[in-house]
Amino acid sequence: MSLPAEFHELAKRVNNWGRWGADDEIGTLNLITDEVVREAAAEVRTGRRVPLALPLQQDGVQTGMVPGRVNPLHTMVQINQELFGPGTVACSDDAVTMGLQAATHWDALSHVSHSGRLYNGRPADTVTAHGGAGFGGIDKPGHIVSRGVLLDVARALGRGRLDSGHAVTPEDLDAAEELSGTKVGPGDIVLVRTGQMQLCLTGDKQAYTFPSPGLSVRTPEWFHARDVAAVANDTLTFEIFPPEIEDLWLPVHALDLVEMGMLQGQNWNLEKLSTACGELGRHTFLLSAMPEPFTGGTGTPVAPVAIF
Amino acid sequence: MSLPAEFHELAKRVNNWGRWGADDEIGTLNLITDEVVREAAAEVRTGRRVPLALPLQQDGVQTGMVPGRVNPLHTMVQINQELFGPGTVACSDDAVTMGLQAATHWDALSHVSHSGRLYNGRPADTVTAHGGAGFGGIDKPGHIVSRGVLLDVARALGRGRLDSGHAVTPEDLDAAEELSGTKVGPGDIVLVRTGQMQLCLTGDKQAYTFPSPGLSVRTPEWFHARDVAAVANDTLTFEIFPPEIEDLWLPVHALDLVEMGMLQGQNWNLEKLSTACGELGRHTFLLSAMPEPFTGGTGTPVAPVAIF
Amino acid sequence: MSLPAEFHELAKRVNNWGRWGADDEIGTLNLITDEVVREAAAEVRTGRRVPLALPLQQDGVQTGMVPGRVNPLHTMVQINQELFGPGTVACSDDAVTMGLQAATHWDALSHVSHSGRLYNGRPADTVTAHGGAGFGGIDKPGHIVSRGVLLDVARALGRGRLDSGHAVTPEDLDAAEELSGTKVGPGDIVLVRTGQMQLCLTGDKQAYTFPSPGLSVRTPEWFHARDVAAVANDTLTFEIFPPEIEDLWLPVHALDLVEMGMLQGQNWNLEKLSTACGELGRHTFLLSAMPEPFTGGTGTPVAPVAIF
Amino acid sequence: MSLPAEFHELAKRVNNWGRWGADDEIGTLNLITDEVVREAAAEVRTGRRVPLALPLQQDGVQTGMVPGRVNPLHTMVQINQELFGPGTVACSDDAVTMGLQAATHWDALSHVSHSGRLYNGRPADTVTAHGGAGFGGIDKPGHIVSRGVLLDVARALGRGRLDSGHAVTPEDLDAAEELSGTKVGPGDIVLVRTGQMQLCLTGDKQAYTFPSPGLSVRTPEWFHARDVAAVANDTLTFEIFPPEIEDLWLPVHALDLVEMGMLQGQNWNLEKLSTACGELGRHTFLLSAMPEPFTGGTGTPVAPVAIF
Repeated sequence: MSLPAEFHELAKRVNNWGRWGADDEIGTLNLITDEVVREAAAEVRTGRRVPLALPLQQDGVQTGMVPGRVNPLHTMVQINQELFGPGTVACSDDAVTMGLQAATHWDALSHVSHSGRLYNGRPADTVTAHGGAGFGGIDKPGHIVSRGVLLDVARALGRGRLDSGHAVTPEDLDAAEELSGTKVGPGDIVLVRTGQMQLCLTGDKQAYTFPSPGLSVRTPEWFHARDVAAVANDTLTFEIFPPEIEDLWLPVHALDLVEMGMLQGQNWNLEKLSTACGELGRHTFLLSAMPEPFTGGTGTPVAPVAIF
Repeated sequence: MSLPAEFHELAKRVNNWGRWGADDEIGTLNLITDEVVREAAAEVRTGRRVPLALPLQQDGVQTGMVPGRVNPLHTMVQINQELFGPGTVACSDDAVTMGLQAATHWDALSHVSHSGRLYNGRPADTVTAHGGAGFGGIDKPGHIVSRGVLLDVARALGRGRLDSGHAVTPEDLDAAEELSGTKVGPGDIVLVRTGQMQLCLTGDKQAYTFPSPGLSVRTPEWFHARDVAAVANDTLTFEIFPPEIEDLWLPVHALDLVEMGMLQGQNWNLEKLSTACGELGRHTFLLSAMPEPFTGGTGTPVAPVAIF
Repeated sequence: MSLPAEFHELAKRVNNWGRWGADDEIGTLNLITDEVVREAAAEVRTGRRVPLALPLQQDGVQTGMVPGRVNPLHTMVQINQELFGPGTVACSDDAVTMGLQAATHWDALSHVSHSGRLYNGRPADTVTAHGGAGFGGIDKPGHIVSRGVLLDVARALGRGRLDSGHAVTPEDLDAAEELSGTKVGPGDIVLVRTGQMQLCLTGDKQAYTFPSPGLSVRTPEWFHARDVAAVANDTLTFEIFPPEIEDLWLPVHALDLVEMGMLQGQNWNLEKLSTACGELGRHTFLLSAMPEPFTGGTGTPVAPVAIF
Repeated sequence: MSLPAEFHELAKRVNNWGRWGADDEIGTLNLITDEVVREAAAEVRTGRRVPLALPLQQDGVQTGMVPGRVNPLHTMVQINQELFGPGTVACSDDAVTMGLQAATHWDALSHVSHSGRLYNGRPADTVTAHGGAGFGGIDKPGHIVSRGVLLDVARALGRGRLDSGHAVTPEDLDAAEELSGTKVGPGDIVLVRTGQMQLCLTGDKQAYTFPSPGLSVRTPEWFHARDVAAVANDTLTFEIFPPEIEDLWLPVHALDLVEMGMLQGQNWNLEKLSTACGELGRHTFLLSAMPEPFTGGTGTPVAPVAIF
């Protein structure tokens, strides 16, 4: 089995290998220039902040569908421990075990490979158990701050949330862009809302997980044409799942991460953001979505914040 | 043994219990109003970003001095796994185990208690193994974004780094504030640089850990007088360690976290920030330092970014 | 709320506090003398070995019912890593995170307290996050080897497995003892088979977990009368669950562990053991069920083996 | 670089591939027949038990030399939690994260490969992050119980412990065998004492770790000639380290695990065993050393017990 010709044609159209040099490990994040950030900061007019991360807890979004991607296990190693004797100041400390992609997260470029290759044509076997991602690890970007644009597809299509079989198309993105009143441009971080997160928030994790609406295999071109820096959404799988094309699994991951070199975010809670955008009458904001710098990480939990 | 009268006098002068209501769990973070954030965003003039987190890796800052505060163990649960058959798109996934206070982190208000009490007078036994911090957990703030001010004490005193026995005094902070060219005010997040991080970066973790320069027991009043929202520095212990007053261990933790309700940050890498401030000729910036929302966490890793 | 008079009466009848001295931390394991072990070894006549542990894997018996008792997360930290250069000998290493009581396990005496007391009257607060069990930890026994006796209650009652609401009574134990053809005596480790494990082995973990047959509140006296060293069975909860007496939760745990000082084992796979006993026509064997010596552990995974 | 001719000659002489069939995954453990176990049980004459595992705790033997092989982190997830309301029976539960080879352990046959091959000629890439060891995992043996023989090399050579540069030779094993008063034979589990563990027990972990005495590259033939089932010793590295032959790292691992298919045990505490053997005047015993059945594990903690 190998990937179909259809995939390779799409791949050719969005491929960014070599665009920022043979040694580049951060892909489209290169598009976030100082100027982009400076202009993004001008989006802050009210000071209102909307956090976008799900709680990190054992009762998290993972249901066991993805092996090893465990919800956070939060444990205590000290509780009010009077380390220096009775009656002294007391400390509590804790520890956690979790899958780096378990909750609200960024995929690193190294998260996915196809045909033995990672982004920029690097061999997939640079990912090892010894050091994790030797290339394209989540420690490489350093910072992710830019203008954020909410493309509220669910709202643009007049739905509370998209049906589980809805593949978000370029036309859907056009409609949401029109609703947003802005034009998506170079260096932007686009947040695509499907409304699927509502299922998770009301406790039906199975329904949230699968089947799931998500981005169509046709969307990478849309993001590529606009030179978007990164894309995140409010689903577990990011792309429509099960896939649109039979036996072509995770094509959007392969196009975004491997071909384009564009980071993806998943399990972002965009519900309050949607409300805030509605109230403020705009869909743009300063977005800080800093990766935790796990050396060799193929992903990272992230606590993004939209600042209006 | 109990805390000396000296401590209780200091405590009285900085106590904020009840100031934001009996149910308040976030303390001085209340001082970060929309207006503060709006003005903080105006600090962004160049778009330059400086990340402040140490790498998250097994070769981290912890030496075993604090029991259970383990460096991150990064492990792989999938490596280029062709989940849907040979020749399909392949995924890599990872997991981590770490102390929440192991690397660059925020202490939650629940991290420390004294005399059986947490911030706002709540009983210390609200911290349990079952749920972690039932009050004052790191999941409570939601967001931490404000104006950041670097108080570069090492530079203000004309040193590469402070001696290991140097307690940073209010007078030192005054000197650094004067160097900064700004006035620290309500809602600011103050980053105090001692230069101690250099020892860690050059690989001498033992020297970095102990003995360590750090904040004097007299500094909480300084921060309280200016209504600072939070304070972080570039040491493992935050305060001078061993302490200034014999047998009075961790008094600054107790004053900041319990009495004042002010979050502390530790192990922040302020070296590149110091350079940037020198180059740009200013010590203020927009700071995003989002806590990972661990439910019941008494601390959290944080990946702060200063935006100029 | 406090424990009912009925409980305290039962407690009085099985209490062993002080029996082996005020400092004793291993309770009825004291009954396993050298002589008992010597005679137990004489049970080995064929050399046949039957292991009793469930596989340790993420797809384990825990369903999330007990907070924090997570199934094993097995991760790789090295895979065929040629640590000393290409072409050299290559190593694979792994790590695990798991609840100590997640799979086939022993409860330590410190696993349960009531009315603020552990076994031997020690204060419950000797269990801390700092060091785990300060008294009665699973590191204390050192070794657990003795004669094992299978009391095959399901078979004795002519059932494949007991109904979910079946409380195993002293009369049931009598019947199984009669079937066994032996007399349970001092120092024996008794394995009580309900057949409930079949539900787990056929994949219905929810049905396995709850509701569950298990030992009746009347059984501790039976074990006490015979001076049994330890008891294990093939259920998640050990005792009938939900309990026989309304609002009296986990009374058997409290009687066995706290009052009697007798270790309990849970999630032991007794199916093949039952078959072997049937084939060999006897229900006694040498049992090695060594605790992993976790310092301060309140439980431990165990890989028991019956040797015939 | 590849392995020298010298290695391949040794390999040929001890190779067991195909001996127990092409599908065999347990190697020399096949030599432990029912008859061997039956006779081993006859070694039990006093009932005295000697446990051989080190405590499992954060202050363990690992110093960080082997990446990812972390000492046990023991954490609490419940402490005297009255799950069913105030005044009810209270539970304590704990969790652990640890390297499977961190403390007293067995290496699985899959722990080491060379030239792309595991035991029985299977491809090394059957070890994956997804499932761990797909061949030769520690879950395969099921049980490890046999006659144990202590070869007390340190005592036989009249030393407290061997020098750090001492490679234990076949002649040393002969001397220890003579001291033991028995003949090592098929199915035996041999425990080789160097005395190195004393360094660990007195707290000098660095000295314990490296350099270390251990088995010579000439010993696999000795074990092969006697059809030994498994070998364990009281060092971190098992074999002499650094190695006897320049640039030939871990040759004993490769010969024992890959060529012969013989399990190795490391970090076994043989000090009290040595004392017991001296007191009892014999060096043979029934040994139970059950692997914890981690599915796909390349190693496992083990709590062995010698029964005299």
